[in-house]
Amino acid sequence: MRREMHLVAYLKTGPTANHAGAWRHPESVLNDLLSPAPYEHIARVLEAGCFDACFFADGLGLHDLYKGGFQTRLKLGGQNSLLDPLAVLPYMARVTSHLGLGATLSTTFHHPYLVARWLGSLDLLSGGRIAWNVVTSTRNEEARNFGGVELPPREARYDKADEFLEACMALWNCWEDDSFILDKQDGVLIDASKVKYADFEGQWFKTRGPLSIPRSPQGNPVIMQAGASDRGRAFAARWAELVFVNPFGKADMIAFRDDLRGRVSERGRNPDNCAVLPFITVVVGETESIAREKADYLNSLADPELVLATNSSFIGVDLSSNVDSVEKVNEGRGTQGMQGSLDRLDSIIRNKGIDFKEAIRQSTPDMIVGTPESITDQLQDLFESGACDGFVVSPLVFPASLEQFCRAVVPELQRRGLFRKTYAGRTLRDNLRHVCQDRE
Amino acid sequence: MRREMHLVAYLKTGPTANHAGAWRHPESVLNDLLSPAPYEHIARVLEAGCFDACFFADGLGLHDLYKGGFQTRLKLGGQNSLLDPLAVLPYMARVTSHLGLGATLSTTFHHPYLVARWLGSLDLLSGGRIAWNVVTSTRNEEARNFGGVELPPREARYDKADEFLEACMALWNCWEDDSFILDKQDGVLIDASKVKYADFEGQWFKTRGPLSIPRSPQGNPVIMQAGASDRGRAFAARWAELVFVNPFGKADMIAFRDDLRGRVSERGRNPDNCAVLPFITVVVGETESIAREKADYLNSLADPELVLATNSSFIGVDLSSNVDSVEKVNEGRGTQGMQGSLDRLDSIIRNKGIDFKEAIRQSTPDMIVGTPESITDQLQDLFESGACDGFVVSPLVFPASLEQFCRAVVPELQRRGLFRKTYAGRTLRDNLRHVCQDRE
Repeated sequence: MRREMHLVAYLKTGPTANHAGAWRHPESVLNDLLSPAPYEHIARVLEAGCFDACFFADGLGLHDLYKGGFQTRLKLGGQNSLLDPLAVLPYMARVTSHLGLGATLSTTFHHPYLVARWLGSLDLLSGGRIAWNVVTSTRNEEARNFGGVELPPREARYDKADEFLEACMALWNCWEDDSFILDKQDGVLIDASKVKYADFEGQWFKTRGPLSIPRSPQGNPVIMQAGASDRGRAFAARWAELVFVNPFGKADMIAFRDDLRGRVSERGRNPDNCAVLPFITVVVGETESIAREKADYLNSLADPELVLATNSSFIGVDLSSNVDSVEKVNEGRGTQGMQGSLDRLDSIIRNKGIDFKEAIRQSTPDMIVGTPESITDQLQDLFESGACDGFVVSPLVFPASLEQFCRAVVPELQRRGLFRKTYAGRTLRDNLRHVCQDRE
Repeated sequence: MRREMHLVAYLKTGPTANHAGAWRHPESVLNDLLSPAPYEHIARVLEAGCFDACFFADGLGLHDLYKGGFQTRLKLGGQNSLLDPLAVLPYMARVTSHLGLGATLSTTFHHPYLVARWLGSLDLLSGGRIAWNVVTSTRNEEARNFGGVELPPREARYDKADEFLEACMALWNCWEDDSFILDKQDGVLIDASKVKYADFEGQWFKTRGPLSIPRSPQGNPVIMQAGASDRGRAFAARWAELVFVNPFGKADMIAFRDDLRGRVSERGRNPDNCAVLPFITVVVGETESIAREKADYLNSLADPELVLATNSSFIGVDLSSNVDSVEKVNEGRGTQGMQGSLDRLDSIIRNKGIDFKEAIRQSTPDMIVGTPESITDQLQDLFESGACDGFVVSPLVFPASLEQFCRAVVPELQRRGLFRKTYAGRTLRDNLRHVCQDRE
């Protein structure tokens, strides 16, 4: 039985998914960012490339940690969600039939009844292709849009997230399959005995149900998660079917995946049902030197101040201040920031022997740079060495980076038997769990 | 200057929009109710018929007042939202380019930041065609899905609704028009000086902003509302651009519209920017006798118990109990039910000289029954007598009723110069405010 790689695209409803300067590239598409066209286009491209899914990273507010304002990041074209992905995803579902579609929804600021209703509905409408990237939110400015001042501490956020998922699962289990009778003659539409209350009562949430939405093809959406902290891993072990991580060296990645698979087993789940996918960006060139030059060109477009502003949000401190060590970050960030981003920075400092400020400067996303063959070599090595189960591929230039990946790298992965040539499953979960057994 | 009628379709994501038996009609479409197809179809039909808009009525939970359970209504095919309209509306936006699209969102159970974000985004994606039907919710079972036991009192719900709208407007005003610069050369994406905080602080909601979504074509969605109570009318006078009402006799309708227009003027607004549209259902026949027989046939399909269950939710008491007068309803319903539905029932009792239980039995929606010409006569009379500014048309049989209305009644309205033949405006608000000036 041979393992097959999983590929998921990381998207933003804005000018850049992660690279601080890529929107300035001549090929980047900006004019219709607020229309459905580019999102429908990329969905079609990814489906042609047999990607398992794409999802929108998202946050509930403009980033305004750096210099205490949102201006730098907004002006210079940093990552911001300029459209609510919940309004965009149905358009993408409309023009595809196999591609999985993921929404990021915060358990700190949403309500389970509304989340269960929306996700269940789109899972029905799309024929079972929906994923939920569960986040607990990481920035105080998000709390400030919802009446608060600061985020709750990480532990409390995750406790609430556990309860949020329990509430949603109770709601998604209200309806049995095949509850529709549709008997016009006798006037019986639904077998009401197949519907029951949820009767969920927790510390933060009470919801009686039933959910008004019938059971969807997947029953519940595929659960995605990205928390790298100890508490985040515990949460992933309980719930996640797809975990995406910041890569930080092959040995560390293998250790992370082993740790997570162990935790998943301890929860009584099959670890093969929890795919671990590192976040990557890829620069493809006809030759190694073309690819190298393309990567250098891209990095030359990144405004150093935007790099500071972006990292401020990631790690949870204002880098226009005199913070100059991981220790000072830990002292100053309170309940904000992502542990995974800080771990990665720490890893850069240790592995490259450079100081904190230089590490920030060099923290533009690691790029995998090369020809289709050499890129595939690297991906294959990571995959086969047990560092991962596939990749979350983020575009640098949108949409060109993902087009190039689908046209040049995917065929090479397929040629080597590492990736599907057609969708085998009916639903996203089917595709994620499918392990190719019949290949020579 | 001649007035032009406005037409809006009332939809549900379920087997029936309002009539208790119409889903049993041979032509009603049931098999793909949980897929996008019927909703995309009706959007196209309505746009071909030059309707201003359609919207989904909605509630946040299965109705379970009657006999203390949801079973009767679910089994017999009562009004229930089987899909979240927020997941359906983008599909409908995708296949149309002029039709307005309305979502019902409750100010009691949603949060302004999320509502402003979603509505603003779909207004951008659809090119300025979004409406928000503002409701405060009317059923305790909705409260029970959100941790409560009973709804707050009507006054408190409307106070919160006022504040909710204020918060949303503050968020929608964060971005000025034309904030995008998109200068790749200089690396300036957005003119951040055109974006400001909302800094909204109320009793129920605090939200700092800025909204992460740029200003949409309409700035804010068209506001719809249906509250008939004194407090509901005050709310409508302040915010609503489109008010829909249960019809209850021409004289009462004229009085209602005059009252509302007076209140709108007192708020310093132009009453012509607040359209009053009674809710109607229409049965079209080739002859009067065919139409009459069709209406009788439809009514024969309504299960009497479903009529009781439906009215229980409307007026807020369990009609399987011994409630037998409007007074007893008022004593028993607490904070639940719709004032407009109770007013209508009271009007039926008084005008027809029948008792409470018989009025409930006869309370299936008033149908306007006839040939295209005689139906148009009635609509024209109501419109020209100042009873209304157009109509909210609800299907009986879905989608056939609306198809028939668009094919047979709309052309007659157009022939008489009462209704547009093409869309004149760019946005929904443009179309609603457009008064045809150049017709002979």
